[in-house]
Amino acid sequence: MSGQAASRSVNMKQVVNETRIRVRYAETDQMGVVYHSNHFIWFEVGRVELLRQLGFTYKEMEREDGCFIAVADARCRYKAPVLYDDEVVVRTWLNNVRDKLIHFGYELLRVGSGELLAEARPRTLSPTRK
Amino acid sequence: MSGQAASRSVNMKQVVNETRIRVRYAETDQMGVVYHSNHFIWFEVGRVELLRQLGFTYKEMEREDGCFIAVADARCRYKAPVLYDDEVVVRTWLNNVRDKLIHFGYELLRVGSGELLAEARPRTLSPTRK
Amino acid sequence: MSGQAASRSVNMKQVVNETRIRVRYAETDQMGVVYHSNHFIWFEVGRVELLRQLGFTYKEMEREDGCFIAVADARCRYKAPVLYDDEVVVRTWLNNVRDKLIHFGYELLRVGSGELLAEARPRTLSPTRK
Amino acid sequence: MSGQAASRSVNMKQVVNETRIRVRYAETDQMGVVYHSNHFIWFEVGRVELLRQLGFTYKEMEREDGCFIAVADARCRYKAPVLYDDEVVVRTWLNNVRDKLIHFGYELLRVGSGELLAEARPRTLSPTRK
Repeated sequence: MSGQAASRSVNMKQVVNETRIRVRYAETDQMGVVYHSNHFIWFEVGRVELLRQLGFTYKEMEREDGCFIAVADARCRYKAPVLYDDEVVVRTWLNNVRDKLIHFGYELLRVGSGELLAEARPRTLSPTRK
Repeated sequence: MSGQAASRSVNMKQVVNETRIRVRYAETDQMGVVYHSNHFIWFEVGRVELLRQLGFTYKEMEREDGCFIAVADARCRYKAPVLYDDEVVVRTWLNNVRDKLIHFGYELLRVGSGELLAEARPRTLSPTRK
Repeated sequence: MSGQAASRSVNMKQVVNETRIRVRYAETDQMGVVYHSNHFIWFEVGRVELLRQLGFTYKEMEREDGCFIAVADARCRYKAPVLYDDEVVVRTWLNNVRDKLIHFGYELLRVGSGELLAEARPRTLSPTRK
Repeated sequence: MSGQAASRSVNMKQVVNETRIRVRYAETDQMGVVYHSNHFIWFEVGRVELLRQLGFTYKEMEREDGCFIAVADARCRYKAPVLYDDEVVVRTWLNNVRDKLIHFGYELLRVGSGELLAEARPRTLSPTRK
């Protein structure tokens, strides 16, 4: 790997995207908290916004380059319940790119208190071409 | 309209599909009832099963014939709350086909009591080719 | 109705909320457009933001006043497909309050072009106390 | 632990629930496959059916015993894409119960071929009382 690519890789890892999300009523369940599958939808929102911040529009990557990101592994650790109408922040960063796999990291934080609500071990994503 | 077509039309209108659905936890909201947008997902399930009963697989209609059904109008009247773990039946029938529009009718009933939980005015669907 | 109530009613009807939403990948279906039940989730987002603009937090209405809004009737007319990553605006306003029923109006517009993507006939909502 | 409890524990671990699910259109995304967060909804369906098979109705556990199961950790490994209208089977079993944590195991299989579509490492669930 050339020195240029290496340093660029380091720079990309320093980029952290923070995207704010307001919890929707439809995302709650009868336990009165956000149903746990919704966190993965939010992490995807964060991932797309991180890519946008890095200069890539995922929509165009799909449409123009035929490049799709398929999730190979999804994991989330739930730290605290998320409630209706809460404002939360998805923090997303690039952990590393190895072989054909991209590893992102995610944290979900409550706006204001900064409380950690959930964190996701780097998902393994494989960009493929159809 | 020929007599044959008319009688076939009558026959299709007599076909009613009944599909049983068990309410999922993810479909409830913090009010303790099924969130109202899920009814439309269930009506679609009923529509696909009605088509299957009539000999059409919607998946193949899309894939092989490039025939897509786009929803032009969706309406639901909610009669009673639907609860977690309830078993419900989607009753679906063909109201009429006019021009390029197919009109389905839907009812949502509670299994056992037969209570009417929701009904949907015929949606207007337009089959299109991509 | 007193003149005061009438004029207040007029004022509330003049309030229009515009809430911007970025379409999520999870909201698309294999036809490549937003699945039609998601529009109702967005209209709810608009309704809550309109209430907030008018000084009411729906979360507190539920929790502190035991006041729940149940949807009695939902309807949407789809004008144009909504695509992944589109930015859309939900325009929400109060149509009228009669008896125990609140009637909202909704429009979904594409940001930039202002194209009308969907509109919802005033839903009938009944505020109830548990 | 008494011998009776131990043998009962072994018996419970031998119970495997198989629940069949037909993929809904709403569960697909524009990549033409099931969106990855839906797997967690299906695993929950499997978990509830396993409990039912063991004699417990989760709905009543919540309502009558005030016993809630909160997901502490969710993980899924995706092996193959799941397509619209596919019939899949969720296989669910009890891995172990330790301290206050219940560990379930899940597999998602395609009906007919038996192909493994996804598997979930035992989630850690904590039953709590409100």
